[in-house]
Amino acid sequence: MRIEGRNSVFEALRSDNVTVNTLFCEKGTANSVTALARQTGVKISFVDRAVLDKMSPEGKHQGYVADVTDFEYCQVEDILAASKQPFVVVLDGINDPHNFGSIIRACECAGVDGVIIGKNRQVAVTDTVVRVSAGACAHVRVARVTNINNAIRQLQDAGVWVYALDMDGQDITKVNLSGSVALVVGGEGEGIAPLTKKSCDGVVSLKLKGKVNSLNASVACGIALYEVVRQRG
Amino acid sequence: MRIEGRNSVFEALRSDNVTVNTLFCEKGTANSVTALARQTGVKISFVDRAVLDKMSPEGKHQGYVADVTDFEYCQVEDILAASKQPFVVVLDGINDPHNFGSIIRACECAGVDGVIIGKNRQVAVTDTVVRVSAGACAHVRVARVTNINNAIRQLQDAGVWVYALDMDGQDITKVNLSGSVALVVGGEGEGIAPLTKKSCDGVVSLKLKGKVNSLNASVACGIALYEVVRQRG
Repeated sequence: MRIEGRNSVFEALRSDNVTVNTLFCEKGTANSVTALARQTGVKISFVDRAVLDKMSPEGKHQGYVADVTDFEYCQVEDILAASKQPFVVVLDGINDPHNFGSIIRACECAGVDGVIIGKNRQVAVTDTVVRVSAGACAHVRVARVTNINNAIRQLQDAGVWVYALDMDGQDITKVNLSGSVALVVGGEGEGIAPLTKKSCDGVVSLKLKGKVNSLNASVACGIALYEVVRQRG
Repeated sequence: MRIEGRNSVFEALRSDNVTVNTLFCEKGTANSVTALARQTGVKISFVDRAVLDKMSPEGKHQGYVADVTDFEYCQVEDILAASKQPFVVVLDGINDPHNFGSIIRACECAGVDGVIIGKNRQVAVTDTVVRVSAGACAHVRVARVTNINNAIRQLQDAGVWVYALDMDGQDITKVNLSGSVALVVGGEGEGIAPLTKKSCDGVVSLKLKGKVNSLNASVACGIALYEVVRQRG
């Protein structure tokens, strides 16, 4: 996989999830990015800007392109083992890589132990997701499962309370989310699949005061995550 | 201005801020959108899909295109007059129309009385912003001012507490935001201008737990808005 942009490359260099094979940067570059690459033994190749332009997957390299090993997904078990009181996000049908990247970024900031995504109706951790996540992908565990309903049962068996984030639930600020908790977030279009929602322990909602009453999926997810952070103190 | 997409057109039809001149939709369309247009006396023009494809500003018309009067900005006074305890958002340098649209959407859901934007370093309410806002633009007051520092002073003179949302402030959940309050949100790149930040009454921050420590501007704004909503009960 090829990634680009100063932030994404820098975060990949200090990540445990991906391995940078080669860092390509413009001739004469000498800064914290190249220093970190040297320190971690990554091969640096100094090239002309025109070469970077050609290598760049989306034309947004900012002077940095890197070849990395593909994103390494983890297992649900790894997420459960990461903390005594796991804080998990389950995504059901996020198709927009920009939304997925923003969600991973929010998860990283909120200290989420891991994200579970399905193999269907859901974008994988692609180059665009990595770029939009501003490097956060490098620090967030992501498990990709065949059936998210089974994964939800697995979380529940491990003592995690699983809540769907949807329109018709209890006010999220009134629900105790301070223990082991997972939030299920649906895609913009169809929301959470009915069967998935039914398998959750409860439904929580954000208070909506306007006339339009819908938030961007990543904004809604960020708000809900920070309510958990607030309650956990 | 020309807008497109079912949501944007529908919200424009029931908005006080914009006036729909003509609604263009595909031949045979008869639903809540056309009913609302009829009810509000808007001229409907039924055309072939190929015509919509040609008219469409971004190729995302979903069968609906409308010619509307340009977005009507309001004055800071209008925002202050909208509520006894105004809840205001000031944007300083949001250049990405997608972020701006998502922020307006979040403001609408959080019941914000108005948004103040500057004329410099800040995207205006363009067609893309309207589309991304999923119609929320039609219900949110936006004042566009020459100098946002003057606008901040005007808010303060009216008894509004103005807080900058930035990295180095007090934990937002520990600050009393239940009265008349304005949040100043900076752009992704440079954040809030130093002089603007200095003119605020305080700085509030989101608790960041990860290694990357930066949120998408619209996600950060959404989280902060909902903390205000929570405190206001």
